Amino acid sequence: MKAVVLDKKGVISIRDMEFHETLGAQDVRVDIHAVGICGSDVHYYKEGAIGPFIVKEPMVLGHEASGIVTEIGSEVKHLKVGSRVCFEPGIPDWSSDESRHGYYNLDPAVRFWATPPIHGCLRESVVHPAALTYELPASLSMEEGALVEPVAIGIHAAEVADVKPGDYALVLGCGTIGLVTAVSALAAGCSTVVITDKLHEKLAVARLYKNLIAVEAEDALVREKKAEITRNRGFDIVFDATGNSHAIAQGIEHIAPHGRLILIGMPSAPVPIDIVRLQMKEVTLKTIFRYANDFSRALQLMGAGILDVKPMISKIFTFDQSVEAFELAAKQDPRLVKILISCR
Amino acid sequence: MKAVVLDKKGVISIRDMEFHETLGAQDVRVDIHAVGICGSDVHYYKEGAIGPFIVKEPMVLGHEASGIVTEIGSEVKHLKVGSRVCFEPGIPDWSSDESRHGYYNLDPAVRFWATPPIHGCLRESVVHPAALTYELPASLSMEEGALVEPVAIGIHAAEVADVKPGDYALVLGCGTIGLVTAVSALAAGCSTVVITDKLHEKLAVARLYKNLIAVEAEDALVREKKAEITRNRGFDIVFDATGNSHAIAQGIEHIAPHGRLILIGMPSAPVPIDIVRLQMKEVTLKTIFRYANDFSRALQLMGAGILDVKPMISKIFTFDQSVEAFELAAKQDPRLVKILISCR
Amino acid sequence: MKAVVLDKKGVISIRDMEFHETLGAQDVRVDIHAVGICGSDVHYYKEGAIGPFIVKEPMVLGHEASGIVTEIGSEVKHLKVGSRVCFEPGIPDWSSDESRHGYYNLDPAVRFWATPPIHGCLRESVVHPAALTYELPASLSMEEGALVEPVAIGIHAAEVADVKPGDYALVLGCGTIGLVTAVSALAAGCSTVVITDKLHEKLAVARLYKNLIAVEAEDALVREKKAEITRNRGFDIVFDATGNSHAIAQGIEHIAPHGRLILIGMPSAPVPIDIVRLQMKEVTLKTIFRYANDFSRALQLMGAGILDVKPMISKIFTFDQSVEAFELAAKQDPRLVKILISCR
Amino acid sequence: MKAVVLDKKGVISIRDMEFHETLGAQDVRVDIHAVGICGSDVHYYKEGAIGPFIVKEPMVLGHEASGIVTEIGSEVKHLKVGSRVCFEPGIPDWSSDESRHGYYNLDPAVRFWATPPIHGCLRESVVHPAALTYELPASLSMEEGALVEPVAIGIHAAEVADVKPGDYALVLGCGTIGLVTAVSALAAGCSTVVITDKLHEKLAVARLYKNLIAVEAEDALVREKKAEITRNRGFDIVFDATGNSHAIAQGIEHIAPHGRLILIGMPSAPVPIDIVRLQMKEVTLKTIFRYANDFSRALQLMGAGILDVKPMISKIFTFDQSVEAFELAAKQDPRLVKILISCR
Repeated sequence: MKAVVLDKKGVISIRDMEFHETLGAQDVRVDIHAVGICGSDVHYYKEGAIGPFIVKEPMVLGHEASGIVTEIGSEVKHLKVGSRVCFEPGIPDWSSDESRHGYYNLDPAVRFWATPPIHGCLRESVVHPAALTYELPASLSMEEGALVEPVAIGIHAAEVADVKPGDYALVLGCGTIGLVTAVSALAAGCSTVVITDKLHEKLAVARLYKNLIAVEAEDALVREKKAEITRNRGFDIVFDATGNSHAIAQGIEHIAPHGRLILIGMPSAPVPIDIVRLQMKEVTLKTIFRYANDFSRALQLMGAGILDVKPMISKIFTFDQSVEAFELAAKQDPRLVKILISCR
Repeated sequence: MKAVVLDKKGVISIRDMEFHETLGAQDVRVDIHAVGICGSDVHYYKEGAIGPFIVKEPMVLGHEASGIVTEIGSEVKHLKVGSRVCFEPGIPDWSSDESRHGYYNLDPAVRFWATPPIHGCLRESVVHPAALTYELPASLSMEEGALVEPVAIGIHAAEVADVKPGDYALVLGCGTIGLVTAVSALAAGCSTVVITDKLHEKLAVARLYKNLIAVEAEDALVREKKAEITRNRGFDIVFDATGNSHAIAQGIEHIAPHGRLILIGMPSAPVPIDIVRLQMKEVTLKTIFRYANDFSRALQLMGAGILDVKPMISKIFTFDQSVEAFELAAKQDPRLVKILISCR
Repeated sequence: MKAVVLDKKGVISIRDMEFHETLGAQDVRVDIHAVGICGSDVHYYKEGAIGPFIVKEPMVLGHEASGIVTEIGSEVKHLKVGSRVCFEPGIPDWSSDESRHGYYNLDPAVRFWATPPIHGCLRESVVHPAALTYELPASLSMEEGALVEPVAIGIHAAEVADVKPGDYALVLGCGTIGLVTAVSALAAGCSTVVITDKLHEKLAVARLYKNLIAVEAEDALVREKKAEITRNRGFDIVFDATGNSHAIAQGIEHIAPHGRLILIGMPSAPVPIDIVRLQMKEVTLKTIFRYANDFSRALQLMGAGILDVKPMISKIFTFDQSVEAFELAAKQDPRLVKILISCR
Repeated sequence: MKAVVLDKKGVISIRDMEFHETLGAQDVRVDIHAVGICGSDVHYYKEGAIGPFIVKEPMVLGHEASGIVTEIGSEVKHLKVGSRVCFEPGIPDWSSDESRHGYYNLDPAVRFWATPPIHGCLRESVVHPAALTYELPASLSMEEGALVEPVAIGIHAAEVADVKPGDYALVLGCGTIGLVTAVSALAAGCSTVVITDKLHEKLAVARLYKNLIAVEAEDALVREKKAEITRNRGFDIVFDATGNSHAIAQGIEHIAPHGRLILIGMPSAPVPIDIVRLQMKEVTLKTIFRYANDFSRALQLMGAGILDVKPMISKIFTFDQSVEAFELAAKQDPRLVKILISCR
């Protein structure tokens, strides 16, 4: 079948590839309809590696996808041929110590799409465990379905943050992850969310959302907005989606007593943290890694019209234009949020 | 000053009364603008008592109120003359064992408006601790301000329920408390809330809210709605606002594994609970009493336009019509939610 | 191989039985060394059923066991031939909705030893998933190893109760489950635990434990002990191991504001609960079902000498005396706690 | 009355001082019997300041104390003349936003003994709020009573760490705070605690406690101990009582997936934190500041004989030897834990 293959750093093409996938009793076979391009896909394309994960063999890209079920295993109950679905792309060992505690995302044996040496889903069809394949509500398009994966990260962040009704949150960074986190925080009960970015072009999409206040990441502006919105108490929750030292320090300054600081962005080096400042406020700092048990939550909120990803879909390419889509993604135009490939 | 006084069971009038209130350093004096009539006010009017609380002396009614500050104590900082405010009506001993743990609502020394022998606020003005007096956002009317108190109960219920993003909830009972709980659960992150009542007239207001599904409390109808909405998994959270045995049993039937059952309604006698059924699902049952630290949360969500109480305001009387307002409230017309007295 | 078989209500014998168990890649084969007799085993023996679980075919009894590994599957890493082990007797579907959230004990597909139609472990050897087979610390005997299963219930109760350092707890009922709960609550951080029973003979073993206060379940005695120990504040946690209405009402009376009531005993009928009394204290009531992820915790505390089960082992029979052991167990002598069968 | 006064950096003496303390209705007057010397007292003595807190006027030292009540205010109920007591030394505004949420330790208005410009308690008698004065169990000596204050820090750390039954913990740093944290973690439900220090002399006292394993803070030794004790899973909880970058990095290396890292030590500069390493394990990092509602817990565990501070009392001086006591404390002999002044 046709697939979008990364042969090595910088070399990407659409070509035929064979997959020897057998449909197990608890699996489904799904025709892929839409795939989002993630920062990690672009990173593998441009750098050939992310930390210890190195592309040594040709690898199919893509892990944010939706599709339509074409075949089901003998024990599959919640899906049928024709079901419109999206995918949770990491397959854990369900009986591992981590999985049986409920945090299967931390299982070291997880096999995750488009993480070397595992192939991604930017191809005609995939076989996937039914337990990690979710039916889309009728109200969502296939394109929106491809965004459930990044939304799940935002939902995980909001759940871990333990949002309480009416909380004020600050989101540092207005890329895809910052945006899905901000709308997840609102959906999870925040009354107002402030989102910041150094690049003012990135803030335009944020301004389309109610109760989401977009501010350039200047110290004085953020300080002023905190004073105005929280009556200077500070934000109950700060989410960092930058991985940037200065942004994190800003977050620490503006967090309220007993607040929670959620670190989503992955810094490239250790970050100096002012621990005494955290102690004076007894701040809790939480870190997250992907998601676990969050797809259903994301779908429930998206299906109810509470969490709307349509403003985040910046551009849609056809499958045949996949290489062009990656080239555009690699330019990191701050006006674009999510670039999608529509396969059918 | 003029006040609405309950002399004894069934005997209510507007008359002059003297209050010997001195303004302490941390107090404010407030002209009352709007007062909601609560079920407890009506109960005192009709029965002269609620449980151990018996009206022995003439008592001013009312504890759901808004007003405008006319004088502030020397140490008050967050309010000024002219501030539009609402009130938390129970005054605890802040250094009691309960208060210092954060649940000051359980302090046995709480002095609560319109709970014998403490006078309520249906009068020209009150003196109240500034710490329990909250500024209204500019977007809220004085009438909406009078509803912050019942909303705080819903917010407390939602906070205690530990709503997680996208949860499904079932609210049993569609009176004022059921409604504020349902809209609080939605504001707190639920994706869909089902609300039930035996009286179909009561459901009309609920139908005005997005993602709030109103259903008559027939076993078959509720079962069907559960199947449709939760794909038969059950509701993550059930709130009881009836205090009724049959309703609670229904809630226990329809709750999901590891679900939470929040009991807000106060039954008049012990309720038979099927404990084994709870155990098979490891349900957590929580009980609540009024609220603590919930007014700011309610105001933040109401001010942001996320939690809208306007559809719940069924009828507004003038202060001079207060007796008439109580007579109507005593009829418990199922089409009416909140009856308000606008004092100015 | 030889097994202790319940043919039907009241008919039990040691006889040869064939088991067609194949060793999977993640399984271990274990020679059984010690088996405890549980109340449920006795109940099946005397009544032939527990609720919906009816003995229709001959069934091997026993689910509290220890043994020595004789063979391991190809993927087993944490055990080897010769490992001394104990067993978690319920096998879930690890990818079910419940399991992936961390509460695999609630998975409706769980296959549990000696719960019809699943055979128990009172036989020469078993094949079991390695993930549910735990190595015993060197300091524990095989007999103590057979008690890890009931201790896991106590640990689960203590974990669910969210014991905070120094909490006071009350345990209602001084049978095996009451005792393991009490010692688990102490191991989990309680400073003092009061345990009650109507039968004073049952209290003797409790008196062997430090900081465990045994009291007859007379209203006046319990009230007095509460006053003395908690300075009348009440118990932070009440565990019910009786399933008895009167005991539960006693627990509700004696629980502290914001306390937690953990229901472990399974009542035979709905229990009238004074909900208003719970509400005045905002009590949280939690229910538990067996255990999940608790065996390692039990073993760590037992291995460290913090939780000692030796005083609970009342009598040890040989495998050949198994029928005699069941007959004694069926008499429910209040002086006996755990009756064990030592198979080797 | 006589008091131990720090006039300025390095200048300390016993001299007469007048205190204009009036006994309020909710206060008690207490004769001081024993006072512990804290690191902060020594710091003020040697440096004249801690961060923004600068000794500008003569200040009485001491905040860890026990004594006997000599007079009670008219509203005091839980104490009487002759009560043996210890003190919580920080007096908050109970109605502040922080206090009413239960974290009164974060109230910015807290007045804390021996923190400029507030006098400490190393003097003949004090007047203190009864709500912050706790009766000592009969089993504790006045000297042990003076250690309740540091123990409360350990209890707060253990409570914040959310110790679950059987957890493994690692404590970095074996000074007073490390030791009280370690014994609190054990009392709170840990099965085994490893404690480390670079100075091997400091480990001697730790070795007197059961299930507390003392290890020199060499990377290889700690790694080996982790492997042995946790079967290489890592510690469920790591407490840092050093404030040292290298120690914190060690803690991050050795923490288990989903583990909790509690930062108690106050670093003198920002600490570089490897956030990605925390994210791969979804570690929660919590910071603490003093304690809130922890004295009763400490007393309950100490009174029950579960948490024993006697091995930590290294040397006792008389009141007249106070200057000598401070001079010894200033030498920071690693063999000494707590130096006490016995006033009577």
